[in-house]
Amino acid sequence: MQTIRQAGAAAPATFSGADALAAHYRSVRARSRTLAAPLSAEDAIVQSMPDASPSKWHLAHTTWFFEQFVLGARPGYAPFDPDWHYLFNSYYNSVGPMHARPKRGLLSRPALAQVLAYRDAVDARMAEAFERGDFDDAMRQRITLGLHHEQQHQELLLTDIKHALWSNPLKPAYRDDLSMPRQASPERLEWIAGSEGEVEIGAAPWPGSGQFAFDSESPRHRTLLSPHALASRPVSNSEFHDFIADGGYRTATLWLSAGWAQVQAEGWRGPLYWDEDGAREFTLGGMRQLDPHAPVVHLSYYEADAFARWAGARLPTEAEWEHAAAGQPVRGNFVEDDYLHPVAPAEGAAKGAPHQLYGDVWEWTSSTYTAYPGFRELPGALGEYNGKFMCGQFVLRGGSCATPRDHVRASYRNFFTPPDRWQFSGLRLAKDAA
Amino acid sequence: MQTIRQAGAAAPATFSGADALAAHYRSVRARSRTLAAPLSAEDAIVQSMPDASPSKWHLAHTTWFFEQFVLGARPGYAPFDPDWHYLFNSYYNSVGPMHARPKRGLLSRPALAQVLAYRDAVDARMAEAFERGDFDDAMRQRITLGLHHEQQHQELLLTDIKHALWSNPLKPAYRDDLSMPRQASPERLEWIAGSEGEVEIGAAPWPGSGQFAFDSESPRHRTLLSPHALASRPVSNSEFHDFIADGGYRTATLWLSAGWAQVQAEGWRGPLYWDEDGAREFTLGGMRQLDPHAPVVHLSYYEADAFARWAGARLPTEAEWEHAAAGQPVRGNFVEDDYLHPVAPAEGAAKGAPHQLYGDVWEWTSSTYTAYPGFRELPGALGEYNGKFMCGQFVLRGGSCATPRDHVRASYRNFFTPPDRWQFSGLRLAKDAA
Amino acid sequence: MQTIRQAGAAAPATFSGADALAAHYRSVRARSRTLAAPLSAEDAIVQSMPDASPSKWHLAHTTWFFEQFVLGARPGYAPFDPDWHYLFNSYYNSVGPMHARPKRGLLSRPALAQVLAYRDAVDARMAEAFERGDFDDAMRQRITLGLHHEQQHQELLLTDIKHALWSNPLKPAYRDDLSMPRQASPERLEWIAGSEGEVEIGAAPWPGSGQFAFDSESPRHRTLLSPHALASRPVSNSEFHDFIADGGYRTATLWLSAGWAQVQAEGWRGPLYWDEDGAREFTLGGMRQLDPHAPVVHLSYYEADAFARWAGARLPTEAEWEHAAAGQPVRGNFVEDDYLHPVAPAEGAAKGAPHQLYGDVWEWTSSTYTAYPGFRELPGALGEYNGKFMCGQFVLRGGSCATPRDHVRASYRNFFTPPDRWQFSGLRLAKDAA
Amino acid sequence: MQTIRQAGAAAPATFSGADALAAHYRSVRARSRTLAAPLSAEDAIVQSMPDASPSKWHLAHTTWFFEQFVLGARPGYAPFDPDWHYLFNSYYNSVGPMHARPKRGLLSRPALAQVLAYRDAVDARMAEAFERGDFDDAMRQRITLGLHHEQQHQELLLTDIKHALWSNPLKPAYRDDLSMPRQASPERLEWIAGSEGEVEIGAAPWPGSGQFAFDSESPRHRTLLSPHALASRPVSNSEFHDFIADGGYRTATLWLSAGWAQVQAEGWRGPLYWDEDGAREFTLGGMRQLDPHAPVVHLSYYEADAFARWAGARLPTEAEWEHAAAGQPVRGNFVEDDYLHPVAPAEGAAKGAPHQLYGDVWEWTSSTYTAYPGFRELPGALGEYNGKFMCGQFVLRGGSCATPRDHVRASYRNFFTPPDRWQFSGLRLAKDAA
Repeated sequence: MQTIRQAGAAAPATFSGADALAAHYRSVRARSRTLAAPLSAEDAIVQSMPDASPSKWHLAHTTWFFEQFVLGARPGYAPFDPDWHYLFNSYYNSVGPMHARPKRGLLSRPALAQVLAYRDAVDARMAEAFERGDFDDAMRQRITLGLHHEQQHQELLLTDIKHALWSNPLKPAYRDDLSMPRQASPERLEWIAGSEGEVEIGAAPWPGSGQFAFDSESPRHRTLLSPHALASRPVSNSEFHDFIADGGYRTATLWLSAGWAQVQAEGWRGPLYWDEDGAREFTLGGMRQLDPHAPVVHLSYYEADAFARWAGARLPTEAEWEHAAAGQPVRGNFVEDDYLHPVAPAEGAAKGAPHQLYGDVWEWTSSTYTAYPGFRELPGALGEYNGKFMCGQFVLRGGSCATPRDHVRASYRNFFTPPDRWQFSGLRLAKDAA
Repeated sequence: MQTIRQAGAAAPATFSGADALAAHYRSVRARSRTLAAPLSAEDAIVQSMPDASPSKWHLAHTTWFFEQFVLGARPGYAPFDPDWHYLFNSYYNSVGPMHARPKRGLLSRPALAQVLAYRDAVDARMAEAFERGDFDDAMRQRITLGLHHEQQHQELLLTDIKHALWSNPLKPAYRDDLSMPRQASPERLEWIAGSEGEVEIGAAPWPGSGQFAFDSESPRHRTLLSPHALASRPVSNSEFHDFIADGGYRTATLWLSAGWAQVQAEGWRGPLYWDEDGAREFTLGGMRQLDPHAPVVHLSYYEADAFARWAGARLPTEAEWEHAAAGQPVRGNFVEDDYLHPVAPAEGAAKGAPHQLYGDVWEWTSSTYTAYPGFRELPGALGEYNGKFMCGQFVLRGGSCATPRDHVRASYRNFFTPPDRWQFSGLRLAKDAA
Repeated sequence: MQTIRQAGAAAPATFSGADALAAHYRSVRARSRTLAAPLSAEDAIVQSMPDASPSKWHLAHTTWFFEQFVLGARPGYAPFDPDWHYLFNSYYNSVGPMHARPKRGLLSRPALAQVLAYRDAVDARMAEAFERGDFDDAMRQRITLGLHHEQQHQELLLTDIKHALWSNPLKPAYRDDLSMPRQASPERLEWIAGSEGEVEIGAAPWPGSGQFAFDSESPRHRTLLSPHALASRPVSNSEFHDFIADGGYRTATLWLSAGWAQVQAEGWRGPLYWDEDGAREFTLGGMRQLDPHAPVVHLSYYEADAFARWAGARLPTEAEWEHAAAGQPVRGNFVEDDYLHPVAPAEGAAKGAPHQLYGDVWEWTSSTYTAYPGFRELPGALGEYNGKFMCGQFVLRGGSCATPRDHVRASYRNFFTPPDRWQFSGLRLAKDAA
Repeated sequence: MQTIRQAGAAAPATFSGADALAAHYRSVRARSRTLAAPLSAEDAIVQSMPDASPSKWHLAHTTWFFEQFVLGARPGYAPFDPDWHYLFNSYYNSVGPMHARPKRGLLSRPALAQVLAYRDAVDARMAEAFERGDFDDAMRQRITLGLHHEQQHQELLLTDIKHALWSNPLKPAYRDDLSMPRQASPERLEWIAGSEGEVEIGAAPWPGSGQFAFDSESPRHRTLLSPHALASRPVSNSEFHDFIADGGYRTATLWLSAGWAQVQAEGWRGPLYWDEDGAREFTLGGMRQLDPHAPVVHLSYYEADAFARWAGARLPTEAEWEHAAAGQPVRGNFVEDDYLHPVAPAEGAAKGAPHQLYGDVWEWTSSTYTAYPGFRELPGALGEYNGKFMCGQFVLRGGSCATPRDHVRASYRNFFTPPDRWQFSGLRLAKDAA
């Protein structure tokens, strides 16, 4: 368990008491406001596909979570607006019906200003309750869960608004002030031998552990690693260019059957946001020149898998990834770095260990999102959080340039379906050792 | 032609010269702003179905029309923003490609404020040109067409935002200050014998005629009327209640084959905006009690046709309707009356002639929207205005509570497809005479 | 009415008494068997699209009609197999539920042999009843209707199996012994002036008239013809080649809006059964060289309309067509001629009148399929025959190479939706006279 | 590896030499004919859904495999009919394009009789080559693979025709002579403790191993088992009745998110072939009374998973299942037993070990179909056999009443997508040990 504690060390004071929790609450809640600040009320209502949500909805839903599961758990609580419960519930069947997901973009009312007032009101009530010391352990746990939930939506707010702005033929930028550092020369890809044999992965079950982890990360358990090696860094734009130039998108035998069908049906010719000739890509800073040495991003599982097959390699398993990452501090290009785009690895990275495991791009693994041995869902409505999605999804690891740094850890399991590519998703190669 | 001239009499000064045209331009353009005034920028971006458009799009597209076909027709014209051409063209294939219609709701940029600035800029350039006397006859005709085009979009702005607000579970009102007069007692439905034999319908071709009409209203031509009678007034909510109570929506033999399929597929149980028990309906003023004596509204062609069959009657032909209307002044409940909803006929309506032909509800006819004998489209891109929609559509007549009074006339042919019901569409019965 | 009687003259003895009706019954029923004879049981079950039906279904459904509406009308009738009622009803909602149309191709049971036995059994019972003189006037009328109904399905059997065989990559022929006469040189297209002013069209209502016509052909009524001319013959393959070569399928402004959308969505480049380079076409005799002088066939309404616009002409109205045809005998290339494909007009066709009006190809008109003034549906379940399809369909006139000669007449109104092209549908040009 | 050899012991002579292979070839090929014998040519063309294929297609495609990969591998081979290659290829992109899968039901030509002649011709050529000793080791391996391929299609032939016949409202039986033994009393479900810790699963790679296994079953490798127990027998109809009676299909929290969506969309109320009141089910012998003690069958993964959650248990992993099965002989209710339906366990089954692991119903596991560590696909076109389907599928184990006994073994991995339920799929419960 040592390695997990190290991973969590990036936010050491966070969970040590009620005051710290109140401070953490204020900090996380403030970031959502900051992320939405560049957006007009019009921007904040756009829903460009059923899988994405309007920014306003993210701001409201994360607030509803605290109202529903924390404030509302107390008898006699008067909701800010009872009608909003229906609008801002997302998938908790056990707490009632909900507004259809693909229709979130139709909600011009409540207005963005009202949603921000809703945030203020809930935050004020939370602050009062913190001050009064109202929250027992169970409630403090729910608040902690709610903050991690909100951090997930912070990343989605960014990826969803990126897709929405890209859907506009004007290709407007989310922000015009984003810098984009570049490296002059590529870092050579090296193969790093991984451990072999029985190892432990996963997190001890929270809240018993005292260290937050989602239910699906637990229990900590033993698993077997085969002889293997991991690439020292993620696949770069330049390398992905080679795949395309070699006819990658036209060669059926490189693809999973479902992936090939998708390529044909959607006419895919490159990563989601690349322009037709692969020179420029859409970023949160608008259309930019591709950096050849930066990690390739916005790939589906199908593309990641096809690339790996083309390269004579494979994707890592989540256990291989986690074991390699568990010994490393959570450092990398996260949302706090304010690039909001993957960047090329700094020159002179330490040799002998995989790097850029954290931040930049979520790395697709070959592991499906399934229950660990002995998995237990959270009790009650919060049990709907993870387990019911354990079907048809692959695990991604490590966080991205849009992830809050203190949200991620070695055991963190993100998951999306194979065709999804609007997340900051890339890949790292693995291979079997001789 | 006498009757047509009378019909046009409601706007006598409008077409008499350049000054009058400039005044008319200012007046029509101002109403679009007035209609959009109750809407927030968020309201103005919502697109609740592919057939509807956001209010902002209506405001921009009608402005684009003047920029494209009037200002832009002059050599060297510098467009307000060249990229917007792609965004705000609607269906003029001959002037270039366009943004996909179902994706208009994704355009958070340009912002509503920018679109309003666009309107101001184009209006200023138009005003200058009017003052300079820049416009020759051909341009004045295009301006006239553009104003009628904008009036069409004014009605669509209202019906589209009504659908958008209704799609919101909160059922917010477009305006809270709309009054809704009611009559204490119903008006008896009477049958009025129509003319028989050869009559003339249609409008003399504009611009030659000096009196505006769309190309599809021309040429004026002779047609034959069979012996028939028209109902004195439109069908009321109360009468439509009887149809429902009698199992109208459950009786296959009352329906066209395609209509019955639609009823099954969509689960229709009543007019579009009625609540489940038929007591209340959604209006631009929010949810209101149904007025039993007001004309039933928001019916598809299928429902209008099924009701008529149930009533042992039929829908009128457009020729029957026009001939009856041609002798009457254009009076009724129009957008200027500011009810924005059909109202019951005033008690003591004159006997002996059909009334409420104009205003309140568009009346479905049994006539498909096809070319009159000798029909000629306008030349050039403007020829795409009407003719290419002459397939799969039925004609509606008379205007509605959302139509500008000086936009409609006896010969006016509105058209929608049989399943459409988000327009202010109702019906008047007709029957064959013995 | 004189002209209609002439048109009917092709089958003079048919309706003069019970014996003649029995003979007509035997003759029509026998032809269905003949048409199905080249098909294996496997061929006879294929349904290549929801709009088409398997041959076996046609054979069974037409038999069911006599069992349901004639034999079954008598008290105590024991059906051949009660379960089959559900299978072989097609659209008569008022006589009960039915097997879903798109699933007709799943019915391997009853076997073709059983369906043929069913035909034999019903025919035997009908023959007995004919001999006993069981049928009163009302029943004789139902039998007459049933025979015309069966003739409609004979044509559909041919067009449906043509589509089914074409859907097979082997492109097998329905029959290998079909001859295909060709003309050495084209016939010049001439314009023939049509009548102008009030004329009568339609058929006197059957059965009162003594002359069979479907309800939708009645009543006979006056209508107005504008000054116009009709082409002397249908448009030829060679002329349609010119349209394609001139970019017809790539020019949006030639098309109805819905037609252009269809062309884009389906990737249409030529008539339904043409190969890619327009040299060969699929026929009931297999793949054959196109005859440049034969009428072009298997066009949708959209294509017919676009061709006419490209040619500077228009489609005829159904009244124009009928008035021109009413004075002519029903002669042409019908199913009895056993070409089962349109053929070029014989050289030296009489000048001064349109020819090939009957047979070869159904001619699209610009008229939608709607009720004539005073139209009355047949009473009871048979009333579902025509009226409920009066929405979204265009009228075609004149019969085709797959139509039984005694099935068609000047007043006959066939109808299909605008995208349909698997019927033997072509076009004749019309134009307004100066 | 001992256990695997035992599992294979059911067919000891099969792989011992060329003669034995020729005999095995004749035997497997003959069974396909036997299975198709009860079907008419009409039955054999029906395709009731895109995932299913007509029987005729199975008969042809399995033959094509030998022609393409065995006979056709020799220079100068003249194919039986070159056009058929396009028709009967299924998913081998690397050997050329293929006929669209959902359109297999349109192929009335070649006729069933021709396909049977094709089988005869290929079998004759194969027999000649066997006699001549033409086949080297590589070819003998391809033949072996082809026979296992054909056995897979034998099972699909049965499940596909079952679905096709059920789709017919007449609900005809595939055979009327199938017996259906029943047990008077239920067998109590017991929990059997499984092994714990590191074990070996999988098969040594064929052909090196000398023992046939598909590529996806290899390599044999170590894995970790958690403490767990397996149910002594599969879940019965009676137990599944309890789930339904307890509101299983109406309780969202029992279901995976995608499963719940499927239940809602399809209106599922019970297993695929159950009638509405759960008293009878469709079998290959027609509609029959449900046997309460027989294993429940025709479940999707979603239903199996929901049942397990409702029962407070879980599905086994494939490793748990395989380790339990590896020590047992391959005995059970297979296709040779000629029930073609699961039957209740014989009374007095040996205690202390799970039984009915083989035969009766394929058992859904919680394992997704992914590559074992070190997995290698077969080289060339045959490499498309398994690997490209490793996405979105769950593993099923043990074979069914429609599986040939010598086709299955402990390491055998069948796979289907979560909504599939037309296979003979059921479940066995598992649970974590304390």
